Amino acid sequence: MNVNQYGKVDQEVVQKLEEILGSQFVATDHEKMEPYSHDEIADEKYAHMPDVVVKPETAQQIADIVKLANEKKIPVTPRGAGSGLSGGAVPIYGGILLSVERMNHIIEIDTENMMVVVEPGVVTNEINEKLKDYGLFFAGYPMSLETCYVGGNVAENAGGGKAVKYGVTERYIMGLEFVTPTGEIINVGGKLIKDVTGYNLRMLMVGSEGTLGIITKVIIKLLPVPKAQVDLLALFPDVQTAISVVPKIMTEGGVIPTAIEFMDKLSVHTSCEYLNESLPYQQAGAMLLITVDGSDEQIVERDYDTIGNLCMDNGAQEVYVADNYTTSERLWSVRRNIAEAFKVVSPHQSLEDIVVPIGQIPALMPEIARISEKYGMQIPCYGHAGDGNLHATPIKNPNDSMDEWNRKLPLALEELYRATLKLGGTLSGEHGIGHKRKKYMPIVKTEAELEFMRRIKRAVDPNNIMNPGKIFDV
Amino acid sequence: MNVNQYGKVDQEVVQKLEEILGSQFVATDHEKMEPYSHDEIADEKYAHMPDVVVKPETAQQIADIVKLANEKKIPVTPRGAGSGLSGGAVPIYGGILLSVERMNHIIEIDTENMMVVVEPGVVTNEINEKLKDYGLFFAGYPMSLETCYVGGNVAENAGGGKAVKYGVTERYIMGLEFVTPTGEIINVGGKLIKDVTGYNLRMLMVGSEGTLGIITKVIIKLLPVPKAQVDLLALFPDVQTAISVVPKIMTEGGVIPTAIEFMDKLSVHTSCEYLNESLPYQQAGAMLLITVDGSDEQIVERDYDTIGNLCMDNGAQEVYVADNYTTSERLWSVRRNIAEAFKVVSPHQSLEDIVVPIGQIPALMPEIARISEKYGMQIPCYGHAGDGNLHATPIKNPNDSMDEWNRKLPLALEELYRATLKLGGTLSGEHGIGHKRKKYMPIVKTEAELEFMRRIKRAVDPNNIMNPGKIFDV
Repeated sequence: MNVNQYGKVDQEVVQKLEEILGSQFVATDHEKMEPYSHDEIADEKYAHMPDVVVKPETAQQIADIVKLANEKKIPVTPRGAGSGLSGGAVPIYGGILLSVERMNHIIEIDTENMMVVVEPGVVTNEINEKLKDYGLFFAGYPMSLETCYVGGNVAENAGGGKAVKYGVTERYIMGLEFVTPTGEIINVGGKLIKDVTGYNLRMLMVGSEGTLGIITKVIIKLLPVPKAQVDLLALFPDVQTAISVVPKIMTEGGVIPTAIEFMDKLSVHTSCEYLNESLPYQQAGAMLLITVDGSDEQIVERDYDTIGNLCMDNGAQEVYVADNYTTSERLWSVRRNIAEAFKVVSPHQSLEDIVVPIGQIPALMPEIARISEKYGMQIPCYGHAGDGNLHATPIKNPNDSMDEWNRKLPLALEELYRATLKLGGTLSGEHGIGHKRKKYMPIVKTEAELEFMRRIKRAVDPNNIMNPGKIFDV
Repeated sequence: MNVNQYGKVDQEVVQKLEEILGSQFVATDHEKMEPYSHDEIADEKYAHMPDVVVKPETAQQIADIVKLANEKKIPVTPRGAGSGLSGGAVPIYGGILLSVERMNHIIEIDTENMMVVVEPGVVTNEINEKLKDYGLFFAGYPMSLETCYVGGNVAENAGGGKAVKYGVTERYIMGLEFVTPTGEIINVGGKLIKDVTGYNLRMLMVGSEGTLGIITKVIIKLLPVPKAQVDLLALFPDVQTAISVVPKIMTEGGVIPTAIEFMDKLSVHTSCEYLNESLPYQQAGAMLLITVDGSDEQIVERDYDTIGNLCMDNGAQEVYVADNYTTSERLWSVRRNIAEAFKVVSPHQSLEDIVVPIGQIPALMPEIARISEKYGMQIPCYGHAGDGNLHATPIKNPNDSMDEWNRKLPLALEELYRATLKLGGTLSGEHGIGHKRKKYMPIVKTEAELEFMRRIKRAVDPNNIMNPGKIFDV
């Protein structure tokens, strides 16, 4: 559907929205709407203003809004915290921006079934804060846990720092309530470990980036908090030596760690300088940050010994152990602040999250170096090496003009994606497609697969009003 | 689509199938087709003869068959080993029965990425047999692993004995190749731990019971084989005492065992008599069979001590420990043979697999007892208590006529399903809907949810030829 074919948000529509929500939860002035026009992508070209911002409180209100939107053919873009990195929550055709920020209640903590029931606007970290007293935790959270919303995590199938051992968001989503693109309220799944009654609409919704409906309630499975946890920081002379150890930890070492994070020299240096961190990072050409946890201290000790020795035997210069919260936080802070630090260096960058089979990570690194050299731009690389998921991040060469950067970046990205595909990988491991990567989908997906997805989208969203223009064009 | 609206398998169709496959892989005589007319449901009313049985060897052949079927509007029913329990592989409108039995190759064992690539006709147990030398295993298998095919496991999202700790089939399916209902070959996922490029078609296919396409290749994630494993058999005076311990093992005990299987008195007695087993089952009113495994013997020992003590503190009469293969096999044999044993007692039974939140299992048991009494039929109960998934199995009262049984059973089932729903549960945890439970779907699913599923089905299978009449009517 062309943008011109959508209906307009006129005074009548605004009035109807106000009738549904109350006028204080409907905003149309520029200043109030501006924060809802972009997500965490620095590049302004991915931003777009909505025509109206609405803040519903209930699934029924959302259903009413969606029914109105269908009647008037107005796009509806659902939005969590806006911490996304693919433009998924940006209303690229204007229309109604639907923020779930007021739906921020933890509805139930069910210790007997080890589940929690939450609204989509709950800040992810708040769940684990609230659960501290119960000895339980939600293991599927992403790195942005302190700002992101659970609803966004589900919509994007967010990955996180603990995915090597614990998997990503999808593994913990046992039930969902959502409003369909035609305005029905549906509950799928429940507090059930197993459920094969019909199609797995839960998993279809997870990661569908708000294009198939708006999530209004989430049932999350919890795990007992591990009793012991240790972080290792291993320094290596170069990228290749560091990355080659990653698959060995799991195969030769026989240990599935909680996390294996990789940082190349440029990433470590940039973050450490940004944080004024005094870690001995100068000597290292690359680092691995490895977490091991478990229900028993002795086993955790045995496991980190195994990993530490494996690193040293395979070319590590040094291995530091952090077995208390303060030191652990310090190490993880370096990793968590890389993206922020690079934003300070240059707003002109493209944070990518390509993913390859773990065994292919060593083969991916020279490809990234080759593309970096070919296009004369730095491509620092860091991320979740234990999942094969790497944040290769092309950065504008200060010597290049903006025109030159805008010409070169798509070429470099296409080459990066093709190299990834050749190694059995794909575009995105956790950030999603949104509208940022939409045009690259045909590189990794056949027309038959794209058409299979489009058919589903068209079938459940006949007017193409639900977050249109994301993932693919209908 | 009415059965009368489907095209006929005439001489021309058979000839075209022979051209695609070679005549030795196309069967039309009654005797050869009869084994393909039913699955493991004992009741003959769920059986139906196909018009032709085909045995393709490649995805391309399947694509050609499906294209032909669309052209002629002939139903295609895909079939694995026929070990299903909901009629999912039964060609209820006749047409083409497509068996994947010749697609039985393990294509690749990739130890570096800890994945295995297999064809759909591989017997599930064969995978773990082949992996023995590599210290890896596929953890998502069902109880019927010695006969079932992987393709069927995926189509049904089969559950299994280890689901408490390891989850069900879906957790291990990283990639799929399948032929769509319109005859395209699509590859989704890969040897990737994370992948958010578009809709999760992998998880939509898993559990879709062959109604959205035919699986032709499966990429399975493996885990390191646990170094230690112990089984506990705990005897309890009655059902309620046994079942009340189940949620406590995970909450109070803080242990996530590999399996917690429940067997009531009637189930244990029937199976032990069938096996001529000398276990001290006479005194017990119910049993829990609990498995603990892990990478460390000491931890496993600690965990089974915790569980053993918890059982004794909560009313167990006796706890037996099996820490070697022979004893362990003996205990599990009792559990595995219950269904078989009941078939010998009476072919007139309905093997159910209702599922409730774990914390609600104690509340479910009196409901089952009430329904059993009300309808005057025994309902032995056993199954995967640790997942809340129970095989309550109504059995024909020998004093009832067949007419009486056929009148009473649907009423008893409906009441069982409604009781399950009331406790937050649903129809089926692992056996699927097929055509056996189709008519009961509106009890647990709203019209909006059913319509959401139907829209997807119609969108990708416009002629409704792919395993029609299963899960719901289009």
